[in-house]
Amino acid sequence: MRDEFRADLHIVSQLLVDMAEGVRSAMRQATRALLTADRQAAETVIERDAEIDDLYRHVEERVCDLLARQAPVASDLRAMITALHVAADLERMGDLADHVAKTALRRHPSPAVPAELRQIFTDMAAIADRMAEKIGSVLAKPDADIAAELDRDDDAMDELHKHLFGVLLGDDWPYGVETAIDATLLGRFYERFADHAVNAGEHVVYLITGETAASPS
Amino acid sequence: MRDEFRADLHIVSQLLVDMAEGVRSAMRQATRALLTADRQAAETVIERDAEIDDLYRHVEERVCDLLARQAPVASDLRAMITALHVAADLERMGDLADHVAKTALRRHPSPAVPAELRQIFTDMAAIADRMAEKIGSVLAKPDADIAAELDRDDDAMDELHKHLFGVLLGDDWPYGVETAIDATLLGRFYERFADHAVNAGEHVVYLITGETAASPS
Repeated sequence: MRDEFRADLHIVSQLLVDMAEGVRSAMRQATRALLTADRQAAETVIERDAEIDDLYRHVEERVCDLLARQAPVASDLRAMITALHVAADLERMGDLADHVAKTALRRHPSPAVPAELRQIFTDMAAIADRMAEKIGSVLAKPDADIAAELDRDDDAMDELHKHLFGVLLGDDWPYGVETAIDATLLGRFYERFADHAVNAGEHVVYLITGETAASPS
Repeated sequence: MRDEFRADLHIVSQLLVDMAEGVRSAMRQATRALLTADRQAAETVIERDAEIDDLYRHVEERVCDLLARQAPVASDLRAMITALHVAADLERMGDLADHVAKTALRRHPSPAVPAELRQIFTDMAAIADRMAEKIGSVLAKPDADIAAELDRDDDAMDELHKHLFGVLLGDDWPYGVETAIDATLLGRFYERFADHAVNAGEHVVYLITGETAASPS
């Protein structure tokens, strides 16, 4: 029974790793679409969001199947509930990549991000990418220090987000309201992506250590 | 065993009803804070968000306890997983009310919403309120038609959201970038509130009918 549970848990973990890789790839391509007005990259992200949604359903089916067959208790049960949380965060991260891609597509062939903001979004995307990578790696190989790293990444994301508003609200902002609205929403998409990565990381660490309950945020 | 399960399920449902009422009240007060620059209303929403988060944790603890003690299968198991989804949507709706309140507070004593946008936000808030009310009532008294109603409400919210952008992007928008940024984020908070209400409603209907699986969105 115990071995069977471990084998099932491994399958669920592998699905979560696949989700994390899919989400990372989606946000990378969405960023390319955004910064280089790459229509095909945007369309690929939008098309492939359904694959991430499918993986989410698979996680949920697997977990339900496992609960029904094995009726785990205590930490094993908690692990299953935690897997559902991680999957929900990853699914939402996929949606946010999809939103970035759709914003890029809506302005195509013009770039949705003007020259003054390219560096900020390049930096936000770099943080988003390493956060998604960390979720994948901690799922594949437990490391309880990762939550602290993700917190630091999230702080850096929040700083960039504040800096973005500073530029938008500067007296010399030359682009008017439409570009500011796009940038506001794009900033929020990257910032929420980071929030979900922090949540997912906390849940994974809880799974490893059983010590830190993630609070809703 | 069956009776015991029903009694436990009833407790979980009651917690979800309490969450729905808390969330509805939070968004009502957040809207009042926003439209009348009511500082105390804003602070109350922000303080009381922790109560909604606590209810979310109680739902999760109850469900875990029930899974461990009773090891439900088939539709009973599915009901437990669905309760977790509904609770997660409601928790997030509480966060969005909190975001509206914080936006009101950030601009206080100025109003965050200028006269030209008051009607749009009044209408968005009215839809948000009736959606939250419907979640509460369908949890208390099953009604499979409610999902269709929530879909129509969500369509009306999306129309208002589009209309909002129309006003912000009009040639005669007199308020500049800062007010446009606030309005963009506020519009998104109400629109996401409605999305989560639709999700929660679909999950509740699935619980009642066992027929309609809600897709991730």
